[in-house]
Amino acid sequence: MHSGNLAHRAATVIAFLSLVMTSSPSSADDQTIALAKQGSFFVAGRVVQGKGVYDPAKDTGNTNEGNTFWADQMYVLYQVPANPRTYPLVLVHGGGGTGRVWETTPDGREGYQTLFLRRGFAVYIVDFPRRGRAGFPSYNGPFGQVDGAAIVPNKTNRAGLQYAWSRWRLGPKYPDVFPVQQFPMKGLDQFMQHLVPTVSDDPEVISGALVALLERIGPAIVVTHSQSGLFGWLAGARSANVKGIISYEPGFVFPQGEMPAPIPLYKGTQAAGTPVTVAEFANLTKIPLQVVYGDNIPKSPIPDLVADGRRAQQVTSRLFVQALNDKGGNASVQLLPDAGLYGNSHFMFSDLNNVAVADQMSEFLRAKGLDAR
Amino acid sequence: MHSGNLAHRAATVIAFLSLVMTSSPSSADDQTIALAKQGSFFVAGRVVQGKGVYDPAKDTGNTNEGNTFWADQMYVLYQVPANPRTYPLVLVHGGGGTGRVWETTPDGREGYQTLFLRRGFAVYIVDFPRRGRAGFPSYNGPFGQVDGAAIVPNKTNRAGLQYAWSRWRLGPKYPDVFPVQQFPMKGLDQFMQHLVPTVSDDPEVISGALVALLERIGPAIVVTHSQSGLFGWLAGARSANVKGIISYEPGFVFPQGEMPAPIPLYKGTQAAGTPVTVAEFANLTKIPLQVVYGDNIPKSPIPDLVADGRRAQQVTSRLFVQALNDKGGNASVQLLPDAGLYGNSHFMFSDLNNVAVADQMSEFLRAKGLDAR
Repeated sequence: MHSGNLAHRAATVIAFLSLVMTSSPSSADDQTIALAKQGSFFVAGRVVQGKGVYDPAKDTGNTNEGNTFWADQMYVLYQVPANPRTYPLVLVHGGGGTGRVWETTPDGREGYQTLFLRRGFAVYIVDFPRRGRAGFPSYNGPFGQVDGAAIVPNKTNRAGLQYAWSRWRLGPKYPDVFPVQQFPMKGLDQFMQHLVPTVSDDPEVISGALVALLERIGPAIVVTHSQSGLFGWLAGARSANVKGIISYEPGFVFPQGEMPAPIPLYKGTQAAGTPVTVAEFANLTKIPLQVVYGDNIPKSPIPDLVADGRRAQQVTSRLFVQALNDKGGNASVQLLPDAGLYGNSHFMFSDLNNVAVADQMSEFLRAKGLDAR
Repeated sequence: MHSGNLAHRAATVIAFLSLVMTSSPSSADDQTIALAKQGSFFVAGRVVQGKGVYDPAKDTGNTNEGNTFWADQMYVLYQVPANPRTYPLVLVHGGGGTGRVWETTPDGREGYQTLFLRRGFAVYIVDFPRRGRAGFPSYNGPFGQVDGAAIVPNKTNRAGLQYAWSRWRLGPKYPDVFPVQQFPMKGLDQFMQHLVPTVSDDPEVISGALVALLERIGPAIVVTHSQSGLFGWLAGARSANVKGIISYEPGFVFPQGEMPAPIPLYKGTQAAGTPVTVAEFANLTKIPLQVVYGDNIPKSPIPDLVADGRRAQQVTSRLFVQALNDKGGNASVQLLPDAGLYGNSHFMFSDLNNVAVADQMSEFLRAKGLDAR
């Protein structure tokens, strides 16, 4: 073979390789990802036993009689790129959704799962116990019952379009939009279709499953959103395998006896957070934490109560970070408008500018030394 | 640069590339997949409207009042490798499970999703309407109701361990095992944890969603399992985009007026299948179809009624294939033991020998010209 041809082939092939192996902070759909492995598994959970003895000569279909079932397991999907960074990301969805929220934006662009896989991170994506592919505790017969006993109450919750509009800042009030906003409105139906019923969420069950996941996979960075903010703080307070937390518009925890006064709302007040032990709170001072808020959050009390609750939550974020840092913590609040990113909704990681929002997270991980290989 | 070095670099890099780009029919966990794109979306579904007007100045939480929700959408996850084959695979889970069943075997090995991605197929994996990440039709309040009206009845179904044992041939009867069997028993808990409640499955809703998916993605090969066998035949009968069907231990369809007599069981009889129109059945004669059965299915009636039902289903498979081929069809039954594969359960695609079972499917696709690029 002529060496000139070889040199040409080597150059071509190396150019291709640099494309395949890229870990550039910006991504594009036309780049190929070198995927080393992927799959899914379940962690945590408990057994539910139906009374009696199962008789396969009597029954021709599903029955509770003498049958053993599971409850409260958590579903975990994972993908690992070639040459991954040291710490994987655990992406934890918020209220009303499943891990699907990280996969694809409502308008079909890449979500954090693929964006950060491209950036060299292994990703673990969960569906909470009682939600999505984790299933929910219901068996043969009326919802949530076995042998007449309620495993969970006969009640679900779900976000509708008009509630979501205010609560998650799709606009100021259905169907109006903000002057500047990043929510991908052309994917509105897909966004609403990704929501699932909530079946009696239990913070101890969910955070316990996260701790079990971290026990299994080892040190990791936890990324939470909204409702799961609490579960991430509880996991960080209870597992030394949490090496950092990025939390998008979460609720908060405070040490027992040091809970701030409730935050005044337009009507009534909002609790500052959930109490944890002093020792648990101290564990959260040992790792880098970042709380992130989007845009279009009211600056002062307004009559829209669900939007006003978000304002109160942002006020509380300052108290949370202060409480941590007063005890030697490494916590900060990032308002995306302060970084020049305007118009972000409550789902900023899947907004039109989600690559820029991801860049903010990459910068935090780099600054805190959490992105090493 | 010295040409000898370049030659060496080219050889090394080309060896690496052949690893990255492999589409060998056998796979190993240590090979890297060149993934071009991935994501998820929803198809089909309908809107459910709560009465009244939503007032964000009154409500502080989720409510049905004046809110708009979705029902019966289907969740679809997809992955596309570099240089994919012409027809993607649509992998359709069966009763009691979700698309998770294709991801990973109960004992943690690669499932069909990754095995066939490695073999160069784009894969589409669904969660049925009312199951898994598709959510189920329940909103704020009692299960399945909006404004006191039942969207679905207050009833779920779920397979327990002892029922599953007989029905899916984890062994002859809980907790006994067969002399030769391939079910990955060390993953038994993971297997049971992947099962979710069934919420009033509706064949028209599910097969309609499959047809909507095929309308969106174009020509594809449909792979079904057990319960979804019916939905796959209905999709093939109603969408010209179905180019072939592989079905693992399904139920069957027959033309109206040509339904075979019910199959005698140890106790009673089992219907041969579900009627479709003569024109629909004729559409199924136009594409290659393969029905696959595992091992340890009874040869004659036995008192275990759920196992006996499977025997009757296998008897029916011969009638189905005969009915299709009598009308010019291209259908066959593959018993895995006839191919030298012994001991397979009802979940043969995630059994210990699932790579060999996948090889059988690859061979069918090759023989029918369905694996071209």
